[in-house]
Amino acid sequence: MTRHEEPSYFPDFVPGSVITGMGVCKVIDSGHPEFKAGDLVLGLTGWEEYTLITEAESLIRINHQEVPLSYYTGLLGMPGLTAYAGFYEICSPKTGEYVFISAASGAVGQIVGQFAKLMGCYVVGSAGSDNKVNLLKNKLGFDDAFNYKKEKDLKMALKRCFPEGIDIYFENVGGAMLDAVLRNMRLRGRISACGTISQYNDDDDKDDGKKRSDGVHNLFCITGRRIRMEGFMTYDYISSYRKFEEMVVQLLKEGKITYVEDIAEGLENAPAAFVGLFEGRNVGKQLVSCCKRVSPSSLIE
Amino acid sequence: MTRHEEPSYFPDFVPGSVITGMGVCKVIDSGHPEFKAGDLVLGLTGWEEYTLITEAESLIRINHQEVPLSYYTGLLGMPGLTAYAGFYEICSPKTGEYVFISAASGAVGQIVGQFAKLMGCYVVGSAGSDNKVNLLKNKLGFDDAFNYKKEKDLKMALKRCFPEGIDIYFENVGGAMLDAVLRNMRLRGRISACGTISQYNDDDDKDDGKKRSDGVHNLFCITGRRIRMEGFMTYDYISSYRKFEEMVVQLLKEGKITYVEDIAEGLENAPAAFVGLFEGRNVGKQLVSCCKRVSPSSLIE
Repeated sequence: MTRHEEPSYFPDFVPGSVITGMGVCKVIDSGHPEFKAGDLVLGLTGWEEYTLITEAESLIRINHQEVPLSYYTGLLGMPGLTAYAGFYEICSPKTGEYVFISAASGAVGQIVGQFAKLMGCYVVGSAGSDNKVNLLKNKLGFDDAFNYKKEKDLKMALKRCFPEGIDIYFENVGGAMLDAVLRNMRLRGRISACGTISQYNDDDDKDDGKKRSDGVHNLFCITGRRIRMEGFMTYDYISSYRKFEEMVVQLLKEGKITYVEDIAEGLENAPAAFVGLFEGRNVGKQLVSCCKRVSPSSLIE
Repeated sequence: MTRHEEPSYFPDFVPGSVITGMGVCKVIDSGHPEFKAGDLVLGLTGWEEYTLITEAESLIRINHQEVPLSYYTGLLGMPGLTAYAGFYEICSPKTGEYVFISAASGAVGQIVGQFAKLMGCYVVGSAGSDNKVNLLKNKLGFDDAFNYKKEKDLKMALKRCFPEGIDIYFENVGGAMLDAVLRNMRLRGRISACGTISQYNDDDDKDDGKKRSDGVHNLFCITGRRIRMEGFMTYDYISSYRKFEEMVVQLLKEGKITYVEDIAEGLENAPAAFVGLFEGRNVGKQLVSCCKRVSPSSLIE
């Protein structure tokens, strides 16, 4: 919510202005030639029932209304495209490889895990509650999963799950988990740096009196193990959106992919849902349904 | 000197056995079909005047005796090939890019800097003494250099040297310098992880009562700036050796590349020279000349 120094998916928050997030909306009126009243769109919108969108570049028309519209904020939205770009483009996966995903039941992680399974990889996820772990193992098809809060030694937990080591780490958290992963990576492993939520409040510029986390110590593993770690932003892959959308809609129709959502009802519950993300309260993609008048549903993140 | 858990350039040290290092030797006698008495070779040898080499796979015959033989432990040896592979293969450099090199006057750094200048990059190096900084600026052709021990704020030092940011970081040290670099990297920057000497004694497995360094905090920059960080080991590029050797010998003959060495005389001075590396006492590639009887010189690292 602070001023961004780093490139970010969202504009800086301005106190007193409407908070923004990715959402699904129905167009009520439009002066833009590519959008007309009645169109359903996905894009950056306000946390409000009616939004005036002046920059239509961020909008994508929703082509498939036969799937739950909420999926366009998740499986078929930016989280889905993030999983698609991060896994296929950044991780260069091969059949049979060992894949580890942190925050695995989240908006992005659950999709990466299913993509990896479809490719014939061995897939393990970590999450922050037994509930989420069950979800990974019993609903999302992960080969194994563990509750990182119950593990005394993350490095040993990964060793147990990956006796042969990890080829691909889809990084969603950073910090201690990254350190543990580095010690378990295989030769020529790949790490896609999608985000590091554990360090969002931890950069070395902060002088707020709070103790910083301990930092990452095991980067020396990158040298000997020839690891490639690469960052990416989903926006760079927007041109792949239609190809991605068709692939995922097809998988949905064939019953080969699923998606777990955690929907808060009512815009008034959005702040609590947002804060809950940082406490790991959500199970699956956190959504807020803010407008029941637009059928079948209109949802913002 | 401890047992290696990570892939390493050298076998584990065994107390009571001869210490090994890269060196230039003259073959006295040989039962190997590819080497004969009188050949000069480069490879893993002992810290001793006469060595019995049982695994000839690590040996490379020296083709150019017209250059100082000591260069085959540096500019034309593994440090040179490290610079060649790390810069051209891992960093994907382009003309005009901004290149930063830590430990820049060392065995590898000084070569990377000269490769980068030959490619038309803007090159800045850091080193640990004013002596070394002078060397970088006045003898090795760096555009700028700074003494990291005299900088209060490494991030600001880099900002001063790179107002436009850094495209390529040739990483030789890790730790606080890496943190500072991350905050100064440009979009789609590349970091070649050649080694992290500051953390050699810092992995999270140590339980020796010593305080670990603070770790790396700014990895979150990797995501937004789409940074690629990649490790490598020079051994993977041995097949490129002859191509590399011819390129560098040609540059030497044209006076387009130079090399700075710090030669300790006598094998009895090898331990002190080795320890000096960790204290930054050496200026340029640290060598030990151990045998004056073989002309022009026979040197081990």
